[in-house]
Formats: sequence, structure tokens, C-alpha cells
Amino acid sequence: MSVTFAQGFAASGVEAGISAVAGKKDLALVVNNGPLDAAAGVFTSNRFCAAPVQWSRKVVADGHVKAVILNSGGANACTGEEGYAQSKATAETVAALVGTDPDDVAVCSTGLIGELLPLDHVLDGAKAAHAALAATPEAGADASHAIMTTDTKPKTVELEGSNGWRIGGMVKGSGMIAPQLATMLCVITTDAVVSAGQLQAALAVAAEHSFNRIDVDGCMSTNDTVLLLASGASGVEPDKDEFNALVKKACASLARQIIGDGEGASHDIRITVTGATTEDAALACGRAVAASNLLKCAISGNDPNWGRIVSSLGTVPPEVAPYESDKVTVDVNGVRICENGGAGRDRSEVDMTPREVHIDIDLNAGDAEATVWTDDLTHEYVHINADYES
Amino acid sequence: MSVTFAQGFAASGVEAGISAVAGKKDLALVVNNGPLDAAAGVFTSNRFCAAPVQWSRKVVADGHVKAVILNSGGANACTGEEGYAQSKATAETVAALVGTDPDDVAVCSTGLIGELLPLDHVLDGAKAAHAALAATPEAGADASHAIMTTDTKPKTVELEGSNGWRIGGMVKGSGMIAPQLATMLCVITTDAVVSAGQLQAALAVAAEHSFNRIDVDGCMSTNDTVLLLASGASGVEPDKDEFNALVKKACASLARQIIGDGEGASHDIRITVTGATTEDAALACGRAVAASNLLKCAISGNDPNWGRIVSSLGTVPPEVAPYESDKVTVDVNGVRICENGGAGRDRSEVDMTPREVHIDIDLNAGDAEATVWTDDLTHEYVHINADYES
Repeated sequence: MSVTFAQGFAASGVEAGISAVAGKKDLALVVNNGPLDAAAGVFTSNRFCAAPVQWSRKVVADGHVKAVILNSGGANACTGEEGYAQSKATAETVAALVGTDPDDVAVCSTGLIGELLPLDHVLDGAKAAHAALAATPEAGADASHAIMTTDTKPKTVELEGSNGWRIGGMVKGSGMIAPQLATMLCVITTDAVVSAGQLQAALAVAAEHSFNRIDVDGCMSTNDTVLLLASGASGVEPDKDEFNALVKKACASLARQIIGDGEGASHDIRITVTGATTEDAALACGRAVAASNLLKCAISGNDPNWGRIVSSLGTVPPEVAPYESDKVTVDVNGVRICENGGAGRDRSEVDMTPREVHIDIDLNAGDAEATVWTDDLTHEYVHINADYES
Repeated sequence: MSVTFAQGFAASGVEAGISAVAGKKDLALVVNNGPLDAAAGVFTSNRFCAAPVQWSRKVVADGHVKAVILNSGGANACTGEEGYAQSKATAETVAALVGTDPDDVAVCSTGLIGELLPLDHVLDGAKAAHAALAATPEAGADASHAIMTTDTKPKTVELEGSNGWRIGGMVKGSGMIAPQLATMLCVITTDAVVSAGQLQAALAVAAEHSFNRIDVDGCMSTNDTVLLLASGASGVEPDKDEFNALVKKACASLARQIIGDGEGASHDIRITVTGATTEDAALACGRAVAASNLLKCAISGNDPNWGRIVSSLGTVPPEVAPYESDKVTVDVNGVRICENGGAGRDRSEVDMTPREVHIDIDLNAGDAEATVWTDDLTHEYVHINADYES
């Protein structure tokens, strides 16, 4: 399904010979057939942002995107002017194929940093992808497969608004996931009749509450891109609040799927901080806990080690999150193992067998809260990121 | 050797039955026999700091410490008023034994967070430790063994000043090592004639350039304590600059030994950032690179993955460290694999067989520099921190 769930969009995913993995689909194309071509985007804040990010940021700036081409098998990051020329040439080829201006074609790449793409394969692949374009569920599924790298499964979302308008989406991301735009590549489509400004406002809030609140390994990517495209093909002007809520729901679903497919993960960990003085304070505490390698190792060993939770919490400066350490409680999977900053019920009472682990921290200092998600740190994570063929 | 290398100090290390490991020495005592009892200390900034930290911070505040008792086998952290009473009772027992005031006895603990100590064993052990006190190299070695937890070897330092005065020291630390006072427990002794103020000034600078610049796993401990004690027994008033330099050298040696014994590490990684506008900018860049799990995994797999170096560098905000991404160079073990922010020489040219890996980053933006140390992230690290008996 994925991006073709919304009316007005065609997609495809083909094998272009970019990825080193034989037989893997590695090039996806998404085309907005209108009548609208409104678009919004959020991008990585990494200062070594990739050539396709530099290109697409300019493309999206005017609020119009007609097509998006995405490749796995190479990030085209840290590749200088030659890399930028590759992104531009790719956009020009796609523009000629779909009959639009290169400035309305966004480009996304994911894979190894520091190497140029095999441009001939990309451009030939673009032609094949254009020939394969379809508005079918299968074509959407092909696109969501083509953007995968270390992902073990495609990640998609399909949501329906109350007047028949729709949102579809796909994302890839598994490692190099940090809470500053924690994804690699994401395209969300809608057939609602909405302006580019409305899209950008909805996307900024939704990304802040989803992709910016997950953390697989604390590592920020050079290529993160989230695009939201509107075709208007449903003819429905949605209620603004409902639209914002559904975009938020779509991003939350895709972000949750990234955590569910985090590299090597055996547990998905939800960390909710309540009783904070402000949402920012709650978020800072949640992120500090989510970043603890020691806690993430303990969880992979099925130990609800609250000492590693509070010692991480204790690194947040008082001016960022005011609280008293002797008033903090921590529940893991519903068992209060830390009470008043000290030992509570015995940790042997905690059932650690479910994949999803819930850590609920009450600072008892206010009424604000926030939730972040992370994964455990496993032998398999090290294996994936140490024992690869370079 | 360790703390008894300096004249005027006696030490011991005994098996007190605190640690769960049968036969392990787990209680160390260091006594300053004067004539001076000047002292300085730096402590963890963790808001969940342990009872012994709360106690010892008060003890050191007046610049006088007569004795330090240190146990492994339990951190006495997050143990509330009862934990604090345990630290106090331990100090009182030691004070009675050595004939001083409890307010001149520092207490240090390391081990599992959240559990009280077996106080009877600690107090009985204190008596045994007092009976075993000696100024010999063997007694110093016993003390440095008694503070070990996941450390695989004792870490000590012995340095001699130009007029015959000396510095000795011991440290324990292997995991939960972050760049905000990255150690667990450290005692440094000197027989120089120096004031408490001079000690504190020397220690603050030395710790900032050593323990605050190493990072095993980004996790800050609840129990970090570094004490510097002066007996004055040499009768030598050292040159101030030489004294500061030697304290700095002692801390640097001990910090380097922690990295050399980092949990599960197969590589010690030195990251030097040059060409920064300020030392703080260089430090921020070095710490960002040192914190990258992906890089640390790559190094454990012997891959000098410069993409993971620059993508970490790219997370430092421009206002913290001004530089142009297309002017950055990265050398690994002397091979310039990243030039002008892009690919340089082939990474296959880099010899990754030595345990020590040198990453030299030139920002080409100024004249300031800084060095931080970290370890690689290995299967063994995950094993130690996931597969333990809890």
C-alpha cells in the first residue's frame, strides 16, 4: 500500500544495480499526479548533510514537489560538488520523464557515506522506475521495499480521514537513528486539498512528536529527509485539526515501526516521563535515559536495572529539569521498582518477556510529560555495525 | 606501589565479605600519617550521587582528610538516609581506629546501585584493614586491588619530583565512564608540602584534562570521587608549576589506564581535534565523535569508517564549533582518509592492527586543539553489561 493509498499518486520500486545486494530493489519513484503538487519537508540538521539533502531542501522551499526519487545502496554524502551534480542530474532525468521542471523533483539517497553513486545505473533505473509507475497497492509496496537498507521489513502507514480523504506513507530507518530527525527517508502522501503552508505546519509538529523522539543509537544521519506531498485528488478540504492529528498519527506510526525494526533490537523501550515542570524538562529526562548504553544492555539481558535509569536521569542539569532526586519513582512494566529515589518492589517481580518494555518515570515536580522510544543494545547491534564487509 | 609511593602514607586492602566474588579483596584503607593532612577532591555531578559522595564532599570541604576508606561490592547509591548513616558509621569506626575525627575520614563505595552495604562486614573489615596498614609497596598494591570491580587489572601511578618529593595514586574504573568526571574512585597521594588550596587548584585543572576527557560508554556514575592528599612528609615545598604539572601527569596516566581497561574494549581510541577556534570547540567535536556507537562498533571491526566520524562531527552546532564541513580533514593512524570533507586516501591503507587507534581531525578553522580518549564498542561490552547475574 504505502504511498499509493492516497489518491493521485503513482509509485514504483525497481532493481537498478545501485545496491551491492544482488536482486534487491534499490530505486523508488513517487509521482504526484495532482491536481495539486503542494509539499513540505523536514531535513537532517547534520552539518555534513548529503548532496540529495542540499538539493531537495531547495526543491521543497517553494512548496511544490511533483516527484520524489529515492535510492538505497549509497548515501551520496560527503561527495562534494560531484555528488551534488549527481543529485541534480537525477532530478533532471526524472523531470524529463514525468514532464516537469527539475526544481520540482526531490532526491533522497541512503547507504554508505563518502562514495559517489553509480550514476548510469541511477539514470537507467529512473527510466525503468518511470515505466513501472502504477497507482496500485503492489507498486506502493515495491517502493517501500526499494528504500530499505539494514531494515528487515518495509514500514508503511495507511490512514483515512472522516470525509474519505487519505494519508499513505513509507519510511526506511533502522540504524543511525538519533532524536534529531530520527529517520533516514520518509515519504508521506495525502489526497486532501491542503496548502503547502498547512502541510509544513502539520509536518513540523508531527515530526517533533515522532521522529524527533526516537533513538536507536544516538547517531544522527547525514541524509534524513521527511517529505509530505498533497495531490488534492480526493477533492476534500479536511478539517484542519483532524488533518494535523492524522499527519501526527501517521508519523507516530512510522516512527514506532522504526523502533520495532531497530538494528539488532530484542526489546522496544517506551520511556514516559511524567510529573515534570515542563514538556522540555520531561523530554530532556526521557532522552537522557534513552541514550544510556548501560541501560540498553541491561534491558537486552532482561534486567530492569533501575540504578542505570536514575543514574542517567541524574545527568540532566537542574536548570533544565527541576526535580528532587528523593521524590522520583520508576515503574518498569507496571512494577514500582524505585520509590522516593531508592529501592522499591523487587525487580524479580518485573516480567521482562514482552518485546515492548514500559519505563514510567514520575519526577513528582509538576504536570508536564513526554514520551520517547528507544531499543535495547544487543550483540546483534554490534555484529551488524562491526562485522560488516566494508 | 600506588598510594604508598609517597612518604607519610600507609595503606591496606583486605577481604571483608562485601563483594559477592569469593576471595576478592574488597576494602581498602589509606591513612595519611602527616605531618600535614591537606586534601582536595572532585566529585560526580550526578544528581543521584551516592551516600559516600554526600559524606565525603562535606569531609573534604575544609581541606583536611586523615584517612580514606574505600569498598567495592556495593555503591551505597540511592539508599536514602539509611545509606548515609552507613557512610557515617563507617567513617566513625575508622576515625576511632586511627585516632581522628569522623569529619576527617572520607568514604568511597563502588558497585551495584540501589542496595545497602552489609554494614557489619564493612565495620569488621575496617578493623582488619587498620591492622593490616603498612607503608610498603605490597600494601599499596593490595589497596589498588581491593577497589577493583569489572576492572581486569589494578591501575596505579608513581611519579617523582625534581627535589625528591613524590606522587602516588590508584584508580578503579572500567564501565559507566563518561566525560564528566570519568572515573569511579581515585586516590592520589603526595608527600610534598602543599596547602589544601594548592591541591584543589592543581586537581581541578588536572581532572578537567584527564578524567573529564575520557569516555567508555557515555554513562555518568553516581559515585565518582577523586581525592588528592598531601602528607608533607618529604619536607619539600615543590615549585608550583612543577607540582601542577606532575598532578596533571598523574591524572593523565590514571585516565589513560582506565581507557586501556575499558569494559570489553579491543581498541583504545585517541581523538585529537586541531584547527578549532577555541579549546571548547575542539573538545565539543572530540566528545561528539567519542560518543558515536556506530564509530565505536566500526573500530571494533577494524574499519576506519570516516563517514561515521564526520557524521558525528556534524552534530555539533555551528555556534559551539564554527568550521566549514568542506575544509575538514581526518587522519586515522596517519592516513588521510578524509580530505576537504570528502573521500581521501583509501581506507584499506590504514593499519588497524595496533590496539591504540589515532583519529586526528583538523577543522582548519583556528589554532585551538583538544584530545579525548574512548574505547571501541565490542560484543564483550554487551556481554559484560547484559549477561551478568543481576
